[in-house]
Amino acid sequence: MKKAILLFSLVLLASCGNDKKTETMSTSEEAHGHSHTHGLAPHTENTIHQYAPTVALLNSIYEGDITPQQMVQQGNIGLGTVNHLAGELVAVDGVVYTIDAEGGIAKAADDLESPNMTMINFQPKQTVTVENIGSYEDLTRELQKYATSRNSFYAYRIKGKFKYLKMASAHKVENEDVSLFDYLDTRVMYTRENLKGTLVGLFTPDYLGNIVIPGMHFHFLSDDIKLGGHLEDIKFDKLSIEIQEVNQVNLQLPKTKKFRNKDLKQGAAPKATAKQNGK
Amino acid sequence: MKKAILLFSLVLLASCGNDKKTETMSTSEEAHGHSHTHGLAPHTENTIHQYAPTVALLNSIYEGDITPQQMVQQGNIGLGTVNHLAGELVAVDGVVYTIDAEGGIAKAADDLESPNMTMINFQPKQTVTVENIGSYEDLTRELQKYATSRNSFYAYRIKGKFKYLKMASAHKVENEDVSLFDYLDTRVMYTRENLKGTLVGLFTPDYLGNIVIPGMHFHFLSDDIKLGGHLEDIKFDKLSIEIQEVNQVNLQLPKTKKFRNKDLKQGAAPKATAKQNGK
Repeated sequence: MKKAILLFSLVLLASCGNDKKTETMSTSEEAHGHSHTHGLAPHTENTIHQYAPTVALLNSIYEGDITPQQMVQQGNIGLGTVNHLAGELVAVDGVVYTIDAEGGIAKAADDLESPNMTMINFQPKQTVTVENIGSYEDLTRELQKYATSRNSFYAYRIKGKFKYLKMASAHKVENEDVSLFDYLDTRVMYTRENLKGTLVGLFTPDYLGNIVIPGMHFHFLSDDIKLGGHLEDIKFDKLSIEIQEVNQVNLQLPKTKKFRNKDLKQGAAPKATAKQNGK
Repeated sequence: MKKAILLFSLVLLASCGNDKKTETMSTSEEAHGHSHTHGLAPHTENTIHQYAPTVALLNSIYEGDITPQQMVQQGNIGLGTVNHLAGELVAVDGVVYTIDAEGGIAKAADDLESPNMTMINFQPKQTVTVENIGSYEDLTRELQKYATSRNSFYAYRIKGKFKYLKMASAHKVENEDVSLFDYLDTRVMYTRENLKGTLVGLFTPDYLGNIVIPGMHFHFLSDDIKLGGHLEDIKFDKLSIEIQEVNQVNLQLPKTKKFRNKDLKQGAAPKATAKQNGK
């Protein structure tokens, strides 16, 4: 049984193949200005901005009310999904992209809405070189070597040429009441070899799994902005990985009727990959 | 068995018996300035600022590193506890007070640190009149009538003369490894009749109980700034209650070694009162 939780990676490559180390982001003052206008939390250093808790998806709440314009106020990289699970989202360099069911990319429409989005104002504090990755487990194990606390978030960005990528995306739910796990079993996986692009993602400790999808979670965007997806498996020879420990999370609750009125049942949150679920 | 989770109500009465309806708070711009200096989240409308998740207390982490100066940047009312559980905290009108084991009040020292603090920039949107409250359950039931979503936070402030208050405070742990529930069994309760003061508190839905103490949670400060405590039971004839629904929570993780290195076990979070635990 495949159980791959949808991850949504909004990718905003200011320019394809941009190697500059400096981030393109609004100044702190501009960000505050936006926040006043729209009532959202401003860009805050060292903060995971989470729209809707994981527990909403687990209760089949597949509709939300956050838009791409609001997302990019909260960070420059991100992962999410589209309303009714009609695709994944990835944000890179401050631009939000949709990923269709086969991995195809488009810039997110202004009126797009999402039921679950994680944005990070990525300011990496550390760059490490990782070699000989033959699986998702290898990558997880290597990254955990650099996690100095088991109770913090860690945000990651990996740019380069990937020898092998296995990905999943999302297709619109036919029945809005379907359970998340039943839905995930129906997803298509696709693979690519020797593809250049960017992975953005984060590690969330289990005790925060009700809020943010727990474990390692990555979304991909190719350099040619043609292919993306939720990462399921990976191989590469040698790549640099940028890392930022994050010690704050800002959770924004949806204001939709569906969320406000739902009798939320609690359950174990799904891990980000099929393999992490032992399937 | 008494199981009353410590609630910490920082109370900041700008002046004793102050009846002005307008809040004394820094302007948004000033707050942002502070946040830049200290790296904390700025005052954000409609946000619960939580220092340390509930799960830390549940894992016997009774030391933290947030100070009163940092707390008052995050809101004008609040509840918390002192390091080593050597007292409770209550914030009213932007001033943080300690509550000793017998309920005695002192302004919090600048070098005080807390392992768990909830601050709210209280801007009530609604004032309701509640009558004939004979118990904590009565109060909870009445307040729930005004909660239009079961999945949001609700912040409350109740000023007036209380016919009966049963309270608990906290005394310094003798053994830092004691479980929270064993500790709570050892707390002293005290009661007062016909006392004027302010209750500040909030309702947290269960699905966020790992982060903020779930259920109704109130701390008290008397108008003469002599007595306070964590509310356990209450009676009053007729009082106005100010209410603010809150749809955002900002969780700040402690940066202490103890928190960073702890193997956090998850368990059911304690409710805020002994009665809510069915004891």
